[in-house]
Amino acid sequence: MSVRIALIGVGIMGADHARIFAEDIPNVQLQVVCDAFEERATEIAQKYGASHVSNNPQETVTRSDVDAVVIASPDQTHAPLSIAAIEAGKHVLCEKPLAPTSEQCLEVLEVEKRLGKQMVQVGFMRRFDPAYTQMKDSLANGAIGKAIMFHCFHRNVEAPANFTGQMAISNSAPHEFDAARFILDEDIAAISVFQPKSVDTTKTGAPVFMVMETQSGQLVNVEINNNAAYGYDVRGELVGELGSVFLQAPVHSLLNANLQAVETYPADWRPRFAEAYRLQNKAWIQSILSGKPSPIASNAWDGYCASLIAEAGVQALNEGRKVTIEMINKPTIYQ
Amino acid sequence: MSVRIALIGVGIMGADHARIFAEDIPNVQLQVVCDAFEERATEIAQKYGASHVSNNPQETVTRSDVDAVVIASPDQTHAPLSIAAIEAGKHVLCEKPLAPTSEQCLEVLEVEKRLGKQMVQVGFMRRFDPAYTQMKDSLANGAIGKAIMFHCFHRNVEAPANFTGQMAISNSAPHEFDAARFILDEDIAAISVFQPKSVDTTKTGAPVFMVMETQSGQLVNVEINNNAAYGYDVRGELVGELGSVFLQAPVHSLLNANLQAVETYPADWRPRFAEAYRLQNKAWIQSILSGKPSPIASNAWDGYCASLIAEAGVQALNEGRKVTIEMINKPTIYQ
Amino acid sequence: MSVRIALIGVGIMGADHARIFAEDIPNVQLQVVCDAFEERATEIAQKYGASHVSNNPQETVTRSDVDAVVIASPDQTHAPLSIAAIEAGKHVLCEKPLAPTSEQCLEVLEVEKRLGKQMVQVGFMRRFDPAYTQMKDSLANGAIGKAIMFHCFHRNVEAPANFTGQMAISNSAPHEFDAARFILDEDIAAISVFQPKSVDTTKTGAPVFMVMETQSGQLVNVEINNNAAYGYDVRGELVGELGSVFLQAPVHSLLNANLQAVETYPADWRPRFAEAYRLQNKAWIQSILSGKPSPIASNAWDGYCASLIAEAGVQALNEGRKVTIEMINKPTIYQ
Amino acid sequence: MSVRIALIGVGIMGADHARIFAEDIPNVQLQVVCDAFEERATEIAQKYGASHVSNNPQETVTRSDVDAVVIASPDQTHAPLSIAAIEAGKHVLCEKPLAPTSEQCLEVLEVEKRLGKQMVQVGFMRRFDPAYTQMKDSLANGAIGKAIMFHCFHRNVEAPANFTGQMAISNSAPHEFDAARFILDEDIAAISVFQPKSVDTTKTGAPVFMVMETQSGQLVNVEINNNAAYGYDVRGELVGELGSVFLQAPVHSLLNANLQAVETYPADWRPRFAEAYRLQNKAWIQSILSGKPSPIASNAWDGYCASLIAEAGVQALNEGRKVTIEMINKPTIYQ
Repeated sequence: MSVRIALIGVGIMGADHARIFAEDIPNVQLQVVCDAFEERATEIAQKYGASHVSNNPQETVTRSDVDAVVIASPDQTHAPLSIAAIEAGKHVLCEKPLAPTSEQCLEVLEVEKRLGKQMVQVGFMRRFDPAYTQMKDSLANGAIGKAIMFHCFHRNVEAPANFTGQMAISNSAPHEFDAARFILDEDIAAISVFQPKSVDTTKTGAPVFMVMETQSGQLVNVEINNNAAYGYDVRGELVGELGSVFLQAPVHSLLNANLQAVETYPADWRPRFAEAYRLQNKAWIQSILSGKPSPIASNAWDGYCASLIAEAGVQALNEGRKVTIEMINKPTIYQ
Repeated sequence: MSVRIALIGVGIMGADHARIFAEDIPNVQLQVVCDAFEERATEIAQKYGASHVSNNPQETVTRSDVDAVVIASPDQTHAPLSIAAIEAGKHVLCEKPLAPTSEQCLEVLEVEKRLGKQMVQVGFMRRFDPAYTQMKDSLANGAIGKAIMFHCFHRNVEAPANFTGQMAISNSAPHEFDAARFILDEDIAAISVFQPKSVDTTKTGAPVFMVMETQSGQLVNVEINNNAAYGYDVRGELVGELGSVFLQAPVHSLLNANLQAVETYPADWRPRFAEAYRLQNKAWIQSILSGKPSPIASNAWDGYCASLIAEAGVQALNEGRKVTIEMINKPTIYQ
Repeated sequence: MSVRIALIGVGIMGADHARIFAEDIPNVQLQVVCDAFEERATEIAQKYGASHVSNNPQETVTRSDVDAVVIASPDQTHAPLSIAAIEAGKHVLCEKPLAPTSEQCLEVLEVEKRLGKQMVQVGFMRRFDPAYTQMKDSLANGAIGKAIMFHCFHRNVEAPANFTGQMAISNSAPHEFDAARFILDEDIAAISVFQPKSVDTTKTGAPVFMVMETQSGQLVNVEINNNAAYGYDVRGELVGELGSVFLQAPVHSLLNANLQAVETYPADWRPRFAEAYRLQNKAWIQSILSGKPSPIASNAWDGYCASLIAEAGVQALNEGRKVTIEMINKPTIYQ
Repeated sequence: MSVRIALIGVGIMGADHARIFAEDIPNVQLQVVCDAFEERATEIAQKYGASHVSNNPQETVTRSDVDAVVIASPDQTHAPLSIAAIEAGKHVLCEKPLAPTSEQCLEVLEVEKRLGKQMVQVGFMRRFDPAYTQMKDSLANGAIGKAIMFHCFHRNVEAPANFTGQMAISNSAPHEFDAARFILDEDIAAISVFQPKSVDTTKTGAPVFMVMETQSGQLVNVEINNNAAYGYDVRGELVGELGSVFLQAPVHSLLNANLQAVETYPADWRPRFAEAYRLQNKAWIQSILSGKPSPIASNAWDGYCASLIAEAGVQALNEGRKVTIEMINKPTIYQ
């Protein structure tokens, strides 16, 4: 029994989803590839054996020959397409963010509340990364005692053009916000933001540094540095009362040459999180087949929380002060 | 279009194949699970959704509702079952060794020669391990210059009962023989074997150390240490004229506690080579669907070579002298 | 020609200085060992071959048979003894802090200004640690581009009794303040302090996290965690526009046992900074012999800056707000 | 009380000894610098404050104003100068080898036997390296159980001109021979030698690979690769019944840049073994002051053993067979 999926949006990440589902995930059938650029949709459909092509996402997400929808189109389409899909009874895997604003995220929550069940998984794939899994295990099994601080570092080689500090918080940092909530099993209560002013802060990719406090008072410190130049590098250390645990990125060989011992960084996130994406997509298909949402995956509530923290972070940066985060009460379907 | 497979033998490794094919490989259908212990076959069949169960391997490998066969039954059955399967037109993924003797391997080669094509892939999964892949790339791209020496270390936590030095060579070392042939793209010309006599060499798991010379004169040095106690650990360093490259095993976290910074070893080979098995099995299914043998995988010829080197190694150990390796001419279907 | 030194205070660190000077530094003679506990002074004097013993520091620092004084007595004695010594024409190596308050540090500066020369070296030994040296080199040689952020982590196994967050800032953090000023060659302009409230902040060793801004706007982030439990661990990463550089602590072996690959942490700072202390003390003796202050070592001005930042940090913690740091103009003898 | 030393030979290593004694070792006075090139001797004497200069080693080693002699002149002079010095009652620190032949080493042993005491320390400095120290500790404290195998790797950037495989064994490998004897506390019983014939073995720096057996049957495997190109790299792993321990070379920083995480190799042995040389020379001076030979250092007997193994190794290479090693009975003064 195969899950028939439609894939909406085949940019870099959408195309990667097509590849992952076609080559690495059993029990799934790539039924429709949809993209505003129909040629691109056709190319990807042929490459990965999809049966249909479309340039109309609204139609696609409600097709009767589709069981589930992967939404990898531009951010502002995430919430409306998710709502359309779940109202038509389709399961959704929505790339992050669930929506560009927490307000829009709430609209998705409303629909799920009305339907009385979780239908949306949000693509915070790090929850499936083996390094984060082991970090969470180290906390769960008592190896480091109670968690006190979480230090997070998010570095890209080069920021896109016109990528402001505000965008670092709203576009890049949500992965860190979700990872912190996942690892600590805590919500974020407040956020302060600093910027190194030695760098022109109006320059694209200017870094930000955030200090967050969880509801129980733990600290979560996050560097977002999209112009780090040296490589794609996501690091994290969870500090507990008895010890600490570091994430280790996958490294397959060590090269000795030219008076150097060298390990290589990837140029972007795909090699770093290849296994996380595979396991995320596998868990999504299994959740559909089993009828039970993945207990690990981010749901719409988690998507809302990430957007809310991002908004507070942007405000903290703009106003130069600590901002507290006010969440709505968690609906019962997410408890 | 799905490949319908029969799985022969569901001990530790066979059961792992069932899990891999069921959960991680698309375009494959677990049609039959066969084991001498029919209860065990039934258990695995139910767990991974196989349609049929059998305790008769001979019948199973020739079933008309089966396209391909995975042979994970005891070593002495590998060659006869492979032959029966390929004569019935089935593709075969045969766990290592292809046969306990090179003589029996030749029988498989004879059948493939007669059929005029390669039908058997041998389960030397390390060829698909990302660490070996990067090592081979470092040689191919010139980063270390021409290869000169390859140092290999193969360590298990604890040897099975009555596991002699001879068995270390015939059962464990073939992975190293195949890896060396794969990485260096060379055949082995001679082998010398040493044993540390400070350890009782009649004791189970007594280690051996081999020095091999390739046909062009490179050295391949291999420690097989099945009682290494501290963990499952496969290491390798390829030394070239300009540098060297080390295999790195997957490590996902670093734990600081009790005045120690700790990385964990697995207790057996499955976590170390999980990705290699997945990619091997994926390549096998793709080779069946495409009609072209994987250019990376070990074929029956490679299986023959590994057994031949093992025989020379046992002889070198028994006679305390360097033994040269005499191969038959390579049949054209393997060139 | 040997420098005759008096050593004031032979607690843990003072006794270590006796050992270092006696065993590892040429051209120096341990002339007097002075401690309030004369028995302890005698014990150390005999162990390391000192000629004289005293329990009177004021007398000791002005003895005519002494050229230079090492001050390792309690913190509040540092400034008065330093002043007494330099007014008597003795060179001083003063353990950190120069004084518990910046006010007292200014008194030392006044005397040096009056004498018209630097006579005091402050024991911020990290400036001589090979790891900090390489970090500074990586900045100087352009390997990481312009510095943007400096992440610092200071962890002890267990805090002394009644060690508050304020003491973490005033007693432990000055090493970080000095290291940041040294590495970045910048002064600190402002400091914010956070505490993880999930830990009882009145508990001894409660950690603090500081975010500092240098005068050019770089960020310096410092965790002080004196109850880190797992080991003595000082880490640092300097992030620049082109890359980053990490300090590496000395590690001499890797042990594989019990399914673990283990590197060991020291229980306190002495093994970690053994080479730094040796090189610091060597540089001090060389500076006396050459008549030129070490260009690397911390001088009284640096000691003043560290105390000033610590005071601002304590205020920032107490008042829950960012505190800016107002320094006096740098006297010409320190330029 | 200072030990007055004469330094014979101030090539690269001799000059380094001058620097070490002058700058890093207390209780020693550089009395005479002697070199065939008197200008060079004068240069080094002035740089490091030696009182006298000579071009006559025979005279120098017997001077009445000298207590001890460091011999760093060409290899063939080591034994005659050592003998002359100890017959004149001087303590000797002799750079390795004690002599180019085991026969000549025996002459030194004869003199010490006649004098009834050890007067010569041989400069196998690795015994003082903190990594070897920790390795030996791991064996002594039971962490790895009984030792079974020792894997050693000795790599230089580039071999000197006309450096044959025979010279790799007689000039480079003795460090490994002595380290193995020191770590295992065992003598070597037999040696086999292999060469990768894929490299022109008449080429300078052609590598050799040795398999040695200790008297209790442990294996010691040594790669000598003087054209390793990528860096000066000495590695070792001691494998025991319960685990293994690796030497770690000193690394002070990790640089991230250009998609690489980089640790640096030194270009020659001096940075790698700087601490070993300092501790060796310190131990030598302490042994003279205390009147007791260092229990760690290599003595003339150890120097004899290293030369004897080297001779067997050269024979094994030349004759293509395993060569057993026949030692004289150990004189009582070395027991």
